[in-house]
Amino acid sequence: MNTLKEGVTAPQGFLASGINCGIKEKKFDLALIYSKIKATTACLYTTNKLKSAPIVVTKEHLWKNKKASAIIINSGNANTCNGIKGIKDAKAMAVTIASYLNFQEKEVLVASTGIIGTPLPIKRITRGTKELVNKLSENGGHDAALAIMTTDTVPKEYSCRFKINNKVVTIGGMCKGAGMIHPKLATTLAFITTDISINYKLLKEALKNSVAKSLNLISIDGDTSPNDMVAILANGKALNDRIVQKDNNFYKFQKALDEVLINLAQMIVRDGEGATKFIKLHIKNAKNYSQAKKVAFAIANSPLVKTTFFGEDLNWGRIINAIGYSDTYLDINKVDIYLGNILIVKNCLKVSFHKNKLKKILQEKEIYLKIDLHEGEKELTIWTTDLSLDYVKINSCYPT
Amino acid sequence: MNTLKEGVTAPQGFLASGINCGIKEKKFDLALIYSKIKATTACLYTTNKLKSAPIVVTKEHLWKNKKASAIIINSGNANTCNGIKGIKDAKAMAVTIASYLNFQEKEVLVASTGIIGTPLPIKRITRGTKELVNKLSENGGHDAALAIMTTDTVPKEYSCRFKINNKVVTIGGMCKGAGMIHPKLATTLAFITTDISINYKLLKEALKNSVAKSLNLISIDGDTSPNDMVAILANGKALNDRIVQKDNNFYKFQKALDEVLINLAQMIVRDGEGATKFIKLHIKNAKNYSQAKKVAFAIANSPLVKTTFFGEDLNWGRIINAIGYSDTYLDINKVDIYLGNILIVKNCLKVSFHKNKLKKILQEKEIYLKIDLHEGEKELTIWTTDLSLDYVKINSCYPT
Repeated sequence: MNTLKEGVTAPQGFLASGINCGIKEKKFDLALIYSKIKATTACLYTTNKLKSAPIVVTKEHLWKNKKASAIIINSGNANTCNGIKGIKDAKAMAVTIASYLNFQEKEVLVASTGIIGTPLPIKRITRGTKELVNKLSENGGHDAALAIMTTDTVPKEYSCRFKINNKVVTIGGMCKGAGMIHPKLATTLAFITTDISINYKLLKEALKNSVAKSLNLISIDGDTSPNDMVAILANGKALNDRIVQKDNNFYKFQKALDEVLINLAQMIVRDGEGATKFIKLHIKNAKNYSQAKKVAFAIANSPLVKTTFFGEDLNWGRIINAIGYSDTYLDINKVDIYLGNILIVKNCLKVSFHKNKLKKILQEKEIYLKIDLHEGEKELTIWTTDLSLDYVKINSCYPT
Repeated sequence: MNTLKEGVTAPQGFLASGINCGIKEKKFDLALIYSKIKATTACLYTTNKLKSAPIVVTKEHLWKNKKASAIIINSGNANTCNGIKGIKDAKAMAVTIASYLNFQEKEVLVASTGIIGTPLPIKRITRGTKELVNKLSENGGHDAALAIMTTDTVPKEYSCRFKINNKVVTIGGMCKGAGMIHPKLATTLAFITTDISINYKLLKEALKNSVAKSLNLISIDGDTSPNDMVAILANGKALNDRIVQKDNNFYKFQKALDEVLINLAQMIVRDGEGATKFIKLHIKNAKNYSQAKKVAFAIANSPLVKTTFFGEDLNWGRIINAIGYSDTYLDINKVDIYLGNILIVKNCLKVSFHKNKLKKILQEKEIYLKIDLHEGEKELTIWTTDLSLDYVKINSCYPT
């Protein structure tokens, strides 16, 4: 499998672009992804009861067809809690793109991200659409990735290439972070393109599987956004034998899609709001998946654990404490904790270890934390961040 | 009902003291409460699977008797994750007190608070016990309240007095904050003394009721400690007709106990780690208690809501967003939000309001936030704080 530099324009038959249309002062704020051939499309949405207008419109558009030709995305405004006007504006975004590119409005997915409850400056968006369409290019993926950023400090793109029966297949993707990150089925905005030929049912299943191993295993602050959406467009341009059953080719595709989504998910964590640490949290020997996940997220979402990592000091009692209040039955007296590969807690008791060695591990930007529950045989790894002064600064000053 | 200045020594027959025994450098770190008459005692414990050694010992002591004569508490060390030595040390604390005061070790409750996983400096504690006993006095409640502080900036005491059949009854209490505060049955350390005569069953029931209305309705950081304990000692010195049924006198007592615990709970929130805001969060017209509580704590525990209050700017989208992901079914489009008494969101849509008026409310130290769910008739008020730069500073530098 080869890793590439480009994102959503890496697969054949996809163009993209990004511009500033005036929602933000200078930065790019409007992105477009376009497939020359109508693509089989699967989508996962936020589980928040509060849903943005573009989520409502996109769901309606995909309801029957499961096909799309384009995705338009704006940043700087979530178009959420805007009532009827919100829905109208989201539809207008689709209509304008469809008329420029000469297909049905139902073939357009719409997404927004940014501040909640401020009316979308729709005129700026529709006015900008012409430029957006004109800029469409085979190298436009990076501009599109720039245009969906909110508090992200870097754009997030990933793609890879593999072969099915001698046909080259490519998957590309982009996503945004960087706060309000807590997985509930789907989290954040992520857009995946691929030129594979596959039926809708298997495309959706593969997406679900990959999201479960990636975006659903990260947490920055425990907040779930009303705008979350993960969409995948498969346009068949690779001309492989269409995947219609769970054969070897399906599993090849699944593996590649896992790689793309896991890498994108990790980029979100690495660029988490104010994050100074990337924490790989490995739960070993859990009774089952549910127990592993409950323990992992109790630790990952504890402000006290997060601040102890920010302080580069190991108040390990906070970790064992979070395991203790996680919502699952377990024998706390069997728990072992490793930092890096150093055993620091054995059977819930402190082990004497080399303080300087530990200090050095804590000063690294990437930290590996392993919890052995000795309850069964299930393993799970999730990714999270520390809680820093900058997280509070960023979020207490977010413009309203 | 009269409010008094003293805490645990306000009721008749109780003495208390506080000293520095050397766990901390200078500050008081060891407290004693003593009842001249063996007192009927009820206790609620943390629901964390990780339990401190003193919790284990106290449970064992109260198992049969439901009677106690003293409580010894140290701060600066949680005596948690210390294995067999932890249990021995907690027992030694009880034994030493019992021998000085000439009663059985089973009559002593033990509590600890502070860092997890560091062996208790038991020699300093037993050496200090003589001074602690010598200092016992009718005015010692304040010293005891000082000695149980951890990151608290002020001691927390409250008491009140009322009459039952012409007999004066007093309830006094003290507690500590100020982080790892999230209610699960009982939270934090709180010690209540009263001279009422009441049977064990009703004392326990009254304590449970009051805790549900007070300590269980606060949240600072969503972390639950392994050392939490709420104990009440009733020594009967008021000589009222013993309360043995749920008559008017019981309800009088319940009301007074509510007052003491609600005031103590609010003191914890006001002194929350790094807190700059005291937020009174009122949920109106919920379908039931469970829904009200789920919505309330989703808001109270959201780092994004907390930081927006710290920033004194109203990113109300974060509030409606937290309601949206709270774990309860509701129609988000019916939700109204009030800040102070200003309606800012009606039916999930922004209402135009006077920006300067709002700014002024946000700058106050006490903030009233009301959420009307329009789902039923249940009301609930909880208390919480903002998330400030100082919270992160305090918790990233907590000595280990």
